[in-house]
Amino acid sequence: MDIHEYISQNEPRFLEELFSLMRIPSISAQPEHHADMLRCAERWRELLLAAGADTAELIPSAGNPLVFAEKHVADDADTILVYGHYDVMPAEPLELWQTPPFEPVVRDGRIWGRGADDDKGQTMIQVKAFEYLVRHGLLRHNMKFILEGEEEIGSPNLAAFLAEHRERLRCDVIFVSDTSMLGADLPSLTTGLRGLAYWEVEVTGPNRDLHSGHFGGAVANPINVLCEMLAQVVDGDGRIRVPGFYDDVEELPAAERAMLAAIPFDEEAYKQAIGVKALRGERGYSTLERNACRPSFDICGIWGGYTGEGSKTVLPSKAFAKVSCRLVPHQDHAVISRLFADYLQSIAPECVRVEVRPMHGGQGYVCPIDHPAYRAAERGFEAAFGKRPLAVRRGGSIPIISDFERELGVKTILMGFGLESNAIHSPNENCRLDIFRKGIVAVVEALR
Amino acid sequence: MDIHEYISQNEPRFLEELFSLMRIPSISAQPEHHADMLRCAERWRELLLAAGADTAELIPSAGNPLVFAEKHVADDADTILVYGHYDVMPAEPLELWQTPPFEPVVRDGRIWGRGADDDKGQTMIQVKAFEYLVRHGLLRHNMKFILEGEEEIGSPNLAAFLAEHRERLRCDVIFVSDTSMLGADLPSLTTGLRGLAYWEVEVTGPNRDLHSGHFGGAVANPINVLCEMLAQVVDGDGRIRVPGFYDDVEELPAAERAMLAAIPFDEEAYKQAIGVKALRGERGYSTLERNACRPSFDICGIWGGYTGEGSKTVLPSKAFAKVSCRLVPHQDHAVISRLFADYLQSIAPECVRVEVRPMHGGQGYVCPIDHPAYRAAERGFEAAFGKRPLAVRRGGSIPIISDFERELGVKTILMGFGLESNAIHSPNENCRLDIFRKGIVAVVEALR
Repeated sequence: MDIHEYISQNEPRFLEELFSLMRIPSISAQPEHHADMLRCAERWRELLLAAGADTAELIPSAGNPLVFAEKHVADDADTILVYGHYDVMPAEPLELWQTPPFEPVVRDGRIWGRGADDDKGQTMIQVKAFEYLVRHGLLRHNMKFILEGEEEIGSPNLAAFLAEHRERLRCDVIFVSDTSMLGADLPSLTTGLRGLAYWEVEVTGPNRDLHSGHFGGAVANPINVLCEMLAQVVDGDGRIRVPGFYDDVEELPAAERAMLAAIPFDEEAYKQAIGVKALRGERGYSTLERNACRPSFDICGIWGGYTGEGSKTVLPSKAFAKVSCRLVPHQDHAVISRLFADYLQSIAPECVRVEVRPMHGGQGYVCPIDHPAYRAAERGFEAAFGKRPLAVRRGGSIPIISDFERELGVKTILMGFGLESNAIHSPNENCRLDIFRKGIVAVVEALR
Repeated sequence: MDIHEYISQNEPRFLEELFSLMRIPSISAQPEHHADMLRCAERWRELLLAAGADTAELIPSAGNPLVFAEKHVADDADTILVYGHYDVMPAEPLELWQTPPFEPVVRDGRIWGRGADDDKGQTMIQVKAFEYLVRHGLLRHNMKFILEGEEEIGSPNLAAFLAEHRERLRCDVIFVSDTSMLGADLPSLTTGLRGLAYWEVEVTGPNRDLHSGHFGGAVANPINVLCEMLAQVVDGDGRIRVPGFYDDVEELPAAERAMLAAIPFDEEAYKQAIGVKALRGERGYSTLERNACRPSFDICGIWGGYTGEGSKTVLPSKAFAKVSCRLVPHQDHAVISRLFADYLQSIAPECVRVEVRPMHGGQGYVCPIDHPAYRAAERGFEAAFGKRPLAVRRGGSIPIISDFERELGVKTILMGFGLESNAIHSPNENCRLDIFRKGIVAVVEALR
């Protein structure tokens, strides 16, 4: 049976299996979901066995356990390790979801719910391609699967896990479906990723909340100070002011800039899709360069003082922010983490105390486009989408990709099937059913 | 029976009455406390009758009802109107209270709980002085009491109420106990107050939360923009940059600056009490000038993006802040409100939409120190505290004081007994019992 026929006959089951995962709120950032993490890992274990793995088990780590499955074909065959993650992002703000985040549904040709894409949906594409190949005797490689439960909190325990289980995870190449394409009609493979550094900043002014009438004007307000400090991170040209920040940033090669400029990119449509009148970024770079090949600084969250209804006046004791930088290959997140913390301390006025807590980080990544597995992936995409995929760097971060390279000594092929409209990390995350199907075809063809 | 003896004999009852009010969470800012507002107003009505009022009733307004009570003494006697408020500030953050905010207790010579000072405790001082005078046949003035339930949200309905009930509220002077003294050993009367303008600012970037990896660097983050904009409100000299902001600000007369400079003010102790290493404010002015006689800008609250546990990366759709300016006499809050909103719009970059919503405002106030009722209050304080009180402007705002002057044509004497250590608007609000007693003595002596 060919793969298209196999998909049409089995799709209701594929979806029910995916939904059984999506119904579990496996939110790694929220400790109250600990039991859900275990349920979700166990459910994946069952599904991997059912799909054709010889063995599948949960392996403990210092944090959430990892799901590991194997299928041996031949001693002299190459081994492919598929990595995915079973944890998802928090679903807040809940009121913006059209249907509840953990009650998956199909509507308008899309699967809706947290994890529909990132990364339950995308990992399911890999697993169903594997299932097809096994059941039809077409699998030519030894396969291993490793699914972690802490990707969305920065994989704090993965590097140690890789080091400890290096033998077991030995492979020739890694496949990951956790990135996105330029568009449904613009298939692409990701050849580079940005790194990430993330901090929590706490500014303390007075030792208690003060009456802003009695103290305002004489005592520094920590929210005012936090805003002033964060406003000093990026200059008017969109450049990050942290001394030394750009030291290891390689200027983009002219050839790559030319290739990016040649991508059919409709800036008006891009603005319209996200509802903004104007874009903003580093002077001298295009949008596609800014959002993938250049570093950025985003305040991911901020809070302090009275945030309830009405109009309470207060000069609060504390203000907080969660801030992050996307980094480019060669910038070391540990170095940047220190430089950034030093910079904030250097601009902190004496009237407050500032604490900068590094939360997590990851290195950027570049994949060579002449790698045989990259070429195979290219053929798979071409078979599924009818076009040769573009090779592009993307702006997201998968810090563990560089861990794989360091610990396991192999390259990773980023076979992502996401779309911008999938709204990952946001309310109403979704995945187009037609892309889900094409993804399975692409992986099957790549593995043939 | 002299007033000191009366207080010692009746203090347990005074406290039980005060506690019965403090147990009611009459938080005007939070709609779910609507029934508590009514319970609290009704409890005050009972207590005013019991204290000696001829009549006491609840009068509806467009918002929470007002409590009104009267005691007629003689047609040709002067009439004093006592104003207070029965609503309190929200108690958040609850975890910082040593004992629950709405379970009042006496500990270490202080009354602890929300409203211990602001304004249930202070209004109780007025009511118990009244009770003493009535019960001993010493009351020489006609007395009226008006207690409102919306002071902490800016008294949105009071001006209309005053206009509608002008005849009924007719009086010769108003007494208000809702301010504080310089110190327990530095009795003072408040002769000036700052005005207030308050806004909510909403910055909208993209039409949904975006993945900061895929969009960060190319799309403006509304939290970044909010911080940048708010950081532009005050310049490096601590002056507010809003064009026209200082147009109506009168420079302090040299005599008043000299008087302020002569107040024994220990800046080291002040810093230590609030736990800061350095103070910050407008260049060229002292701390006592900055916190009472000069305008100020405070961000009272800020929120946006991910504020939960862990480290979610997101480029959020929206960011919010609640901001306020304390104003000085002659600055018109309606004018400032417009200037400020115009300024924020003028510095808003094209990449976001900015909405500035005026929340409430109030004018500043100055009281002449040769007013006969001011002189009487001075004598009362001197009798109770053994020192002539200083005449000082304070930094807080009681917008309704200027409403009284405009609508009723009379001056207000600000006989406040608060202390900075009372922590009003903060966790662990409290009131020293000895000051509570002296307050009653001071009011009794002022009214004789």
